[in-house]
Amino acid sequence: MAGNSIGQCFRITTAGESHGPANVVIIDGIPPGISLSERDIQTDLDRRRPGQSKITTQRKESDKAEIISGVFEGKTTGTSLTIFIRNRDIRSQDYVSIKNKYRPGHADFTFDMKYGIRDYKGGGRASARETVVRVAAGAVAKKMLMEMGYSIKILGYVKQIGHLVAESVDPASLTLKQIESNIVRCPDQKVAKKMIQLIEKLRRECDSIGGMAEFAAIGVPAGWGEPVFDKLKADLAKALFSLPAVMGVEFGAGFAVATARGSENNDQFIKSEEGKIITKTNRHGGMLGGISSGMPIIARCAVKPTSSIPRELETVTRDGKATKIATKGRHDPCLLPRFIPMGEAMIAITLADHCLRHRGQTGTKG
Amino acid sequence: MAGNSIGQCFRITTAGESHGPANVVIIDGIPPGISLSERDIQTDLDRRRPGQSKITTQRKESDKAEIISGVFEGKTTGTSLTIFIRNRDIRSQDYVSIKNKYRPGHADFTFDMKYGIRDYKGGGRASARETVVRVAAGAVAKKMLMEMGYSIKILGYVKQIGHLVAESVDPASLTLKQIESNIVRCPDQKVAKKMIQLIEKLRRECDSIGGMAEFAAIGVPAGWGEPVFDKLKADLAKALFSLPAVMGVEFGAGFAVATARGSENNDQFIKSEEGKIITKTNRHGGMLGGISSGMPIIARCAVKPTSSIPRELETVTRDGKATKIATKGRHDPCLLPRFIPMGEAMIAITLADHCLRHRGQTGTKG
Amino acid sequence: MAGNSIGQCFRITTAGESHGPANVVIIDGIPPGISLSERDIQTDLDRRRPGQSKITTQRKESDKAEIISGVFEGKTTGTSLTIFIRNRDIRSQDYVSIKNKYRPGHADFTFDMKYGIRDYKGGGRASARETVVRVAAGAVAKKMLMEMGYSIKILGYVKQIGHLVAESVDPASLTLKQIESNIVRCPDQKVAKKMIQLIEKLRRECDSIGGMAEFAAIGVPAGWGEPVFDKLKADLAKALFSLPAVMGVEFGAGFAVATARGSENNDQFIKSEEGKIITKTNRHGGMLGGISSGMPIIARCAVKPTSSIPRELETVTRDGKATKIATKGRHDPCLLPRFIPMGEAMIAITLADHCLRHRGQTGTKG
Amino acid sequence: MAGNSIGQCFRITTAGESHGPANVVIIDGIPPGISLSERDIQTDLDRRRPGQSKITTQRKESDKAEIISGVFEGKTTGTSLTIFIRNRDIRSQDYVSIKNKYRPGHADFTFDMKYGIRDYKGGGRASARETVVRVAAGAVAKKMLMEMGYSIKILGYVKQIGHLVAESVDPASLTLKQIESNIVRCPDQKVAKKMIQLIEKLRRECDSIGGMAEFAAIGVPAGWGEPVFDKLKADLAKALFSLPAVMGVEFGAGFAVATARGSENNDQFIKSEEGKIITKTNRHGGMLGGISSGMPIIARCAVKPTSSIPRELETVTRDGKATKIATKGRHDPCLLPRFIPMGEAMIAITLADHCLRHRGQTGTKG
Repeated sequence: MAGNSIGQCFRITTAGESHGPANVVIIDGIPPGISLSERDIQTDLDRRRPGQSKITTQRKESDKAEIISGVFEGKTTGTSLTIFIRNRDIRSQDYVSIKNKYRPGHADFTFDMKYGIRDYKGGGRASARETVVRVAAGAVAKKMLMEMGYSIKILGYVKQIGHLVAESVDPASLTLKQIESNIVRCPDQKVAKKMIQLIEKLRRECDSIGGMAEFAAIGVPAGWGEPVFDKLKADLAKALFSLPAVMGVEFGAGFAVATARGSENNDQFIKSEEGKIITKTNRHGGMLGGISSGMPIIARCAVKPTSSIPRELETVTRDGKATKIATKGRHDPCLLPRFIPMGEAMIAITLADHCLRHRGQTGTKG
Repeated sequence: MAGNSIGQCFRITTAGESHGPANVVIIDGIPPGISLSERDIQTDLDRRRPGQSKITTQRKESDKAEIISGVFEGKTTGTSLTIFIRNRDIRSQDYVSIKNKYRPGHADFTFDMKYGIRDYKGGGRASARETVVRVAAGAVAKKMLMEMGYSIKILGYVKQIGHLVAESVDPASLTLKQIESNIVRCPDQKVAKKMIQLIEKLRRECDSIGGMAEFAAIGVPAGWGEPVFDKLKADLAKALFSLPAVMGVEFGAGFAVATARGSENNDQFIKSEEGKIITKTNRHGGMLGGISSGMPIIARCAVKPTSSIPRELETVTRDGKATKIATKGRHDPCLLPRFIPMGEAMIAITLADHCLRHRGQTGTKG
Repeated sequence: MAGNSIGQCFRITTAGESHGPANVVIIDGIPPGISLSERDIQTDLDRRRPGQSKITTQRKESDKAEIISGVFEGKTTGTSLTIFIRNRDIRSQDYVSIKNKYRPGHADFTFDMKYGIRDYKGGGRASARETVVRVAAGAVAKKMLMEMGYSIKILGYVKQIGHLVAESVDPASLTLKQIESNIVRCPDQKVAKKMIQLIEKLRRECDSIGGMAEFAAIGVPAGWGEPVFDKLKADLAKALFSLPAVMGVEFGAGFAVATARGSENNDQFIKSEEGKIITKTNRHGGMLGGISSGMPIIARCAVKPTSSIPRELETVTRDGKATKIATKGRHDPCLLPRFIPMGEAMIAITLADHCLRHRGQTGTKG
Repeated sequence: MAGNSIGQCFRITTAGESHGPANVVIIDGIPPGISLSERDIQTDLDRRRPGQSKITTQRKESDKAEIISGVFEGKTTGTSLTIFIRNRDIRSQDYVSIKNKYRPGHADFTFDMKYGIRDYKGGGRASARETVVRVAAGAVAKKMLMEMGYSIKILGYVKQIGHLVAESVDPASLTLKQIESNIVRCPDQKVAKKMIQLIEKLRRECDSIGGMAEFAAIGVPAGWGEPVFDKLKADLAKALFSLPAVMGVEFGAGFAVATARGSENNDQFIKSEEGKIITKTNRHGGMLGGISSGMPIIARCAVKPTSSIPRELETVTRDGKATKIATKGRHDPCLLPRFIPMGEAMIAITLADHCLRHRGQTGTKG
């Protein structure tokens, strides 16, 4: 219970269903005096917005953020900040046919098992719609870090869709412009083109496809995180796994460490030209012992193919009778392009939290 | 700050350094009336114990658990339960030479950046020694689940070391006996033999090797977990990533979903012979929408090769001067065999927490 | 930071300023399947509503609750529940003159010291306006307890205003009707009449007056609460002291224990006619060792006179220059009548939380 | 559940029973680099120690603190800090006779109702013995505040026992020496003498007596605390009410506000000679809107007479049969003298927490 909050010092609490009147987030613990307006939030909301391109869901939401509290004359007051985003384009009738059936790959069954009741319209609380306010909160977190004087860049891109893998993209030197240069958010333009074709093909085939996203957080100072349970990597992993459809998370060298030897996996410390202690390589992915090292934080997420597909599949009714189901409604044939701003948001929220935690305990900004 | 606790309802708080007098865990929230003695805890402690075989560190610790509070006449009282495990075999002199150097792959540098002070003896709080009380708490969690009437089996094994991968092990039908049938904890006896040889070879070469562990939790009822931030997979991932050396975590089909289509990845619901709704396949790994489905929970962790190797490597001093380092002390050339009870413990602790959370909110045991 | 939430299992998070667009509460952890509509919430909102009588502030708010999430077809879903209450009758111009002055008895100065910024319009977040959503959440808590099968009655009344003290009111047998039988919420009709006259006199004199409220929670089963830090009385006290203007809280015999002997203060256990173990007297106020005893929980709160008075007082500007201030705006000359539903709400929220906590840990409803 | 912790950033978790091997506290979140040794803790432990004078319990405990973790070469490391205090003088046989009886005024009955099991030896977890580690943690909190550069003085004294009330003690100018100048901890020497005589008389009469303690925290900077639920006064009240036997808490003018008018109760702001904004009077008790004002924080606690008295009283057995009970064991005939260090400790712990919370959110020390 009480599972709709995340963060300890920068803490967000969310609510809202796919087909309810609105989604809401309350952000608690933000420092006072941060310049903030709806415009700061809108850019990332637009990147997440449904209907943004031909390869996403065609649900049309303007996703305009309304700041309801916590900002006075353009600055945060330090009290709880509410953002409200209305749902406008609702077609609940699409869901009547699945009211008593369990969509494969969905949370219909598990919600029923947990609660004995479920809002079947658009998936209710189990819809990716809930991430809209996470992205809003992530934009606030990014703004906070910037106004506190950090030059932290948190960016992600689509590294893989199906068997198509972006080549030679260095996550540590990515720019937002590169990522946004095409609708699939893959800066390898050649591969991006093929990815778009693949997604369109799958949509025509009433199917969907999985993929992998890679994220980098550059400029995080050394010293954020905690040594035991609240390791920075543990909290980032929780934040990323809390997004819908994530089946795997890895940092730095990730699963490749399974075949590595210590002598090759250990990143050696050296002094940089600017006199900072850095590591020569970054197999550790920017965190050692749960604490940031100052090197780029590198994370990758495996995202499953959209469960909602219009193709007919076998399933059962609530009573356990065999039946067939084809999920209507409007869905993304591939979740990856819109996953990018969601992942960035969760990383920003986690870093904002550890930033304040670190300052509280040590008195330094790190 | 306050990062030494995990769990909301079944909550553990730990303390202790590698070369301090003891490690301690306080378990808060455990139901009253659970039969519990030090014997219940010792089995898992022995599985984690250093010095247990020729392929682990040779530090000798008896690791005897002492229950200091919370148990009266053999039953938990419902009040906070303390377990105390003394450190006995300490050789702090091995660490004097590294006092002012940063061991590659270690938390020496990041601790200094965070705290400006660090207990260099045996790694202080950043040593895997701290996991001893996690394993004790995990044994309590397992006992609690059993006494509450669940038949939940939480087991892990070593699936991979270097390029050696266990074949045809079904994690869902593993037994403790199979896992403990060899010192490397890999039930594929042929591969296990080669793994042992590989580890011994690497020790001779003053090197270490990474690997992968697979875990299964069988018998978890459908309905545990939460839909948004405290998704069961998110909390399990945090728990596993909070262990030292974990670089990746995946559930069910894991990273393989990147190349999957929805039509093949969606696990179809069917009615079992016993009349239960189950899924035909288990690519989802036992959790849908953050809530357990009743199917086996399957998790895999990538574990990096031990950072502490006696081979000489380049590094810098605290002042940033280039130097060389060879880590003395006693270390495991491969962390995997002893990682198994640690991973099981973190899974058990997370399930115990969500068990009580579920009961609190819904009044049912699930 | 993160101080806008209360409760562990039944957890509420609030946001909103006096003159912002709305106040919001997110309730997290509520059991699924509870019947709930806006009507359940409106009764208590109306009891708290400004402008309800001649002795309260004349600000006119309809205070209509809108449920934004967490309820589906009339039942709670178990996911986060949002209630939204708009602010309509705002006169911010009344506050321009105090923008740079510190109102005596108010939080203007301390907000500036903490945050360096403050929303001076209507007091911003430091206005009693924020309690509107607490009362809404309290109504949800009461409904939850009722639907879970408890017959818990949580009622308060005005025991004292100035030197006028209600006589012979037994808090354990109060009814809502009695409390609501007059506008000052004092069931002693004779004293109530004098209280109303006193309040009217003070308003004419541009002054305000303090008082004391008494609350009873009847029907709380024995066993709720925790033995150490989260004693039920400690959590109730925190909840009550978190309301504006509370300067003292006592339970049972309260401050009178200072002069009592153990032999007279100890409530003796006896068997009731129904065969239940009860205490003969209730000086302990329904809680022993932090845990409910099954006897009525009795609490009293001292509430200070309204700080905002239209009489001219000495104060300083933000720069520390001596000046005079007379607080315009619309204010209650006595906070007590509207304090009653606020106090009841905080008690209900605290009991709802401990109800779920108890069920989670022990599996019984208590 | 999980009710054995308090604090958000400076967080303590305790465990231990009256007749178990030891009491333990883990302090999490303390800044690194604070000088700390067992000596810093012993002074307050000695002030709380049983057997310290003829008017306290005669249980003999040396109460020597052992720091088990979190301190390295005399400085805190920033990781979790454990303090261990053994129980040595245990006479469990005194409690066998009450095993199946409910002591009036005690938690025996409520523990049974909650847990169905209870450690009857010395009261188990429901004994004031558990406060020993609170006092140790409070000493750490005081040291932390001092080393962070604050001149905060947290002191309490016995203001009242029975009808004997200390006169003309200004809590804001108290010294430790004055408080410790007699065994009853009342700086009014004349009244102190009478208090001691009264306590001795009550012990002879096999009875006990209640009283009131007053505390002051001087030098707390303006700006600590939070505006809504985590008001500084709310958190202080929770901390104080979490101590055994507290029946009432008030701040500043306290319950006397019930009869006050706004025009007399509002403390006017003025500029001090040093140029600071202060209030002329301190009826608000150092907190406005939940945030410290820089004026002395003044709190008073009503403490009930010891429940355990050797005089025979009526009660029931666990089965509800009428019986008689006379509590053997060794007890204080008046809790007040030893309550002083306990109350100070809880205030110090709460201030330490809000100090770090404030620094985390605002970046300033306040």
